[in-house]
Amino acid sequence: MKQILVIGAGRSTSYLIKYLIEQSVENNWFITVCDRDISLAQEHVRGAGNAQAETFDINNEIHRVSHISKSDLVISMLPASMHPIVARDCIALGKHMVTASYISNEMKELAPEAEKAGVVLMNEIGVDPGIDHMSAMQIIDDLRGKGAKLLQFESFTGGLLAPESELNNPWRYKFTWNPRNVVVAGQGGAVKFIQENTYKYIPYHNLFRRTEYMDIEGYGRFEGYANRDSLSYREVYGLQEIPTLYRGTLRRPGFCRAWDVFVKLGATDDSYIIEGSEDMTYRQFINLFLAYNPTDSVELKLMHYLKIEQDSDVMEKLNWLGIFDDTKIGLSNATPAQILEHILMQKWALEPEDKDMLVMYHRIGYELDGERKQIESSMVSIGEDQTYTAMAKTVGLPAAIASKMILNGTIHTPGVHVPITPEVYNPVLKELENYDIRFHEKVSEYKGY
Amino acid sequence: MKQILVIGAGRSTSYLIKYLIEQSVENNWFITVCDRDISLAQEHVRGAGNAQAETFDINNEIHRVSHISKSDLVISMLPASMHPIVARDCIALGKHMVTASYISNEMKELAPEAEKAGVVLMNEIGVDPGIDHMSAMQIIDDLRGKGAKLLQFESFTGGLLAPESELNNPWRYKFTWNPRNVVVAGQGGAVKFIQENTYKYIPYHNLFRRTEYMDIEGYGRFEGYANRDSLSYREVYGLQEIPTLYRGTLRRPGFCRAWDVFVKLGATDDSYIIEGSEDMTYRQFINLFLAYNPTDSVELKLMHYLKIEQDSDVMEKLNWLGIFDDTKIGLSNATPAQILEHILMQKWALEPEDKDMLVMYHRIGYELDGERKQIESSMVSIGEDQTYTAMAKTVGLPAAIASKMILNGTIHTPGVHVPITPEVYNPVLKELENYDIRFHEKVSEYKGY
Repeated sequence: MKQILVIGAGRSTSYLIKYLIEQSVENNWFITVCDRDISLAQEHVRGAGNAQAETFDINNEIHRVSHISKSDLVISMLPASMHPIVARDCIALGKHMVTASYISNEMKELAPEAEKAGVVLMNEIGVDPGIDHMSAMQIIDDLRGKGAKLLQFESFTGGLLAPESELNNPWRYKFTWNPRNVVVAGQGGAVKFIQENTYKYIPYHNLFRRTEYMDIEGYGRFEGYANRDSLSYREVYGLQEIPTLYRGTLRRPGFCRAWDVFVKLGATDDSYIIEGSEDMTYRQFINLFLAYNPTDSVELKLMHYLKIEQDSDVMEKLNWLGIFDDTKIGLSNATPAQILEHILMQKWALEPEDKDMLVMYHRIGYELDGERKQIESSMVSIGEDQTYTAMAKTVGLPAAIASKMILNGTIHTPGVHVPITPEVYNPVLKELENYDIRFHEKVSEYKGY
Repeated sequence: MKQILVIGAGRSTSYLIKYLIEQSVENNWFITVCDRDISLAQEHVRGAGNAQAETFDINNEIHRVSHISKSDLVISMLPASMHPIVARDCIALGKHMVTASYISNEMKELAPEAEKAGVVLMNEIGVDPGIDHMSAMQIIDDLRGKGAKLLQFESFTGGLLAPESELNNPWRYKFTWNPRNVVVAGQGGAVKFIQENTYKYIPYHNLFRRTEYMDIEGYGRFEGYANRDSLSYREVYGLQEIPTLYRGTLRRPGFCRAWDVFVKLGATDDSYIIEGSEDMTYRQFINLFLAYNPTDSVELKLMHYLKIEQDSDVMEKLNWLGIFDDTKIGLSNATPAQILEHILMQKWALEPEDKDMLVMYHRIGYELDGERKQIESSMVSIGEDQTYTAMAKTVGLPAAIASKMILNGTIHTPGVHVPITPEVYNPVLKELENYDIRFHEKVSEYKGY
């Protein structure tokens, strides 16, 4: 019987654990799910014969090593910064490991040791990163195989709401993932990409005003803003010569223009603490970023400062969030970003009846036999409920499937990997189709820029 | 004979050294001016009987200690980060020290040792910081002595051009101080101040759109933008209860609105390197921050992106700088800020015939005997030429005068100080009047906000 250890039982693990349990009898697996909070782990394994819940303390080495040494494969769903701790144990104990997180430099440096130990450390095998790599590389490798020259690679992913849950929400958005990451998205340096062989740089404060639209059949229109660093993907995807490379995040149209208000105000800043935040109201918080005036309203000052029309969708969105209300914040020593997250949580937390939606869209331009064309490839996945979300599905299933393939020997090359080779992406993408995670392709004339 | 050691002979030291040499016979001083580049030091002492030039290497301890041990007082005009090295030697060797720079935390921590050693370490005795502290504290202490309650403290300083040198320059500005500091001014965290008991925060990207005007008789109108941290001055000036505290920088009207273009583009970013900067033109540099288009001009894209009218003074200023020219940058591996500084230097470097102008303006509101009033106190100093600048005069003379007062025992309290006590600011301000550095006061009704 093969032992699988899942570390971390947070909300992105529902489908992962469900898949492992469902396939445990057939594959002769025993699943141990552990978390700092054992009740989270217990929920996932309730009623399962081949699974158990355990408590876990990453900082307790004896405890950690004892768990890992009993396993054949470890799936780490911990925060990304903790993966290297687990990875070093896995290498020392000769265990394979799977994560859905970006490879850190610390992880990268473990490659020679992993190879020497004959251990597979598969990373970035969730949704973004994960399904984006696999679906993009499948198209890119196919085009290259036919002798095509690549002209353009654009890729966008967004965690959004299912159309039925978007009603009565002018942002057409709620948090389906770590809220903090949404609030500080795009911060930490200028955004870089390349368009028609020209480098482009967007400072954070203008990021949400440089969007583009895309339409996905059956799901309507989306807008995309640029992710921070697209350029590093040239190496990863082998696209060193491509004239246009752009990666981004999807929102519904109008989101970015309204979000830009918070950016322009300075309300997404996470670098300093607001004095007296606890006793402040939402309205006073917004007023911190506006000039003093003894009589003018916060609304009027904001509209004038940022040139917003009173009857615009932007004002509708801001009013709907309640940012002008006299509600107490109640968070002490909070940064602007923390206060904004708190205010947004009142409206953007998923309700029990809400369903989320994961959308991915690639546009790949190429020249083949003297003709210039583009492939638009898109995938939409809709969640079942608040637990079985599209986010959890698209993050968890690729990691689960890759784990199966490592245990049955399909994936066997030792080292520190991301899923960009056909022997990984082909079988994983194929099996994902059984779970209704499938891409639809449309080929048309190349439009370029 | 008292020995004075001046370390650093850069362009802010012309008046400092001139003063010391002029007064050396009367006071029985001998002046040693040293610099890494001895030719800089030699220029300053040429023809002087009581002065000599030496070479100096801050990193050579033996050399440093030998110079300092021969002195009675050391004036450090080195970059601020190097002062603590000199200060520790001064403490160990029992020598007094004067600097015109902000006290660093490292410097602050030397206070107990300086007191124990009986050594005076006088800092922030230039213009800003320096004359601003002294002139403000003279007014504040006077008002307090009369029993007034302080309502408002605003203080602005600017290094600008003399009116005769502003002609044919739509910015009415050139670099009269470290160009790099001008390019990155305001960066490094949100700007904080307090208006009518309300904290206010301005993110960097909107700093240059939140200006206010002030008029100085005989010199016309100026605009001020906020300095990064006004709040720390509450402690220093003993203004913990004041409802309005704001410190800022002066420019000529319209400067900030045009400078905002560079901020909004992201062209003042100093955090990353532009690939291929060496072979790029000014025009291509600006285009890095604008969306790709195969035919639209850089000018039109910029005007549209930042909502600038074609016939506005902003476009006139940008065109005058030549930022749309096909001139090669020629700097390799440069950050946006470095490239921008390079472009600006072509137009904003002082010409031999240019004269600079240092402007300081305080507005202090108070209530006395049931009446609310405000004092506007301003000082304007105009340079003689490119060497004897107003900047060098207002930085150097306070440091020189303070040095004299330490040597003759007028200033004698050991420790790490800034010039905020009457025994320092009264005689220094008095002597500065001999050099035409004088404040003009105007009392009027309190205007508040």
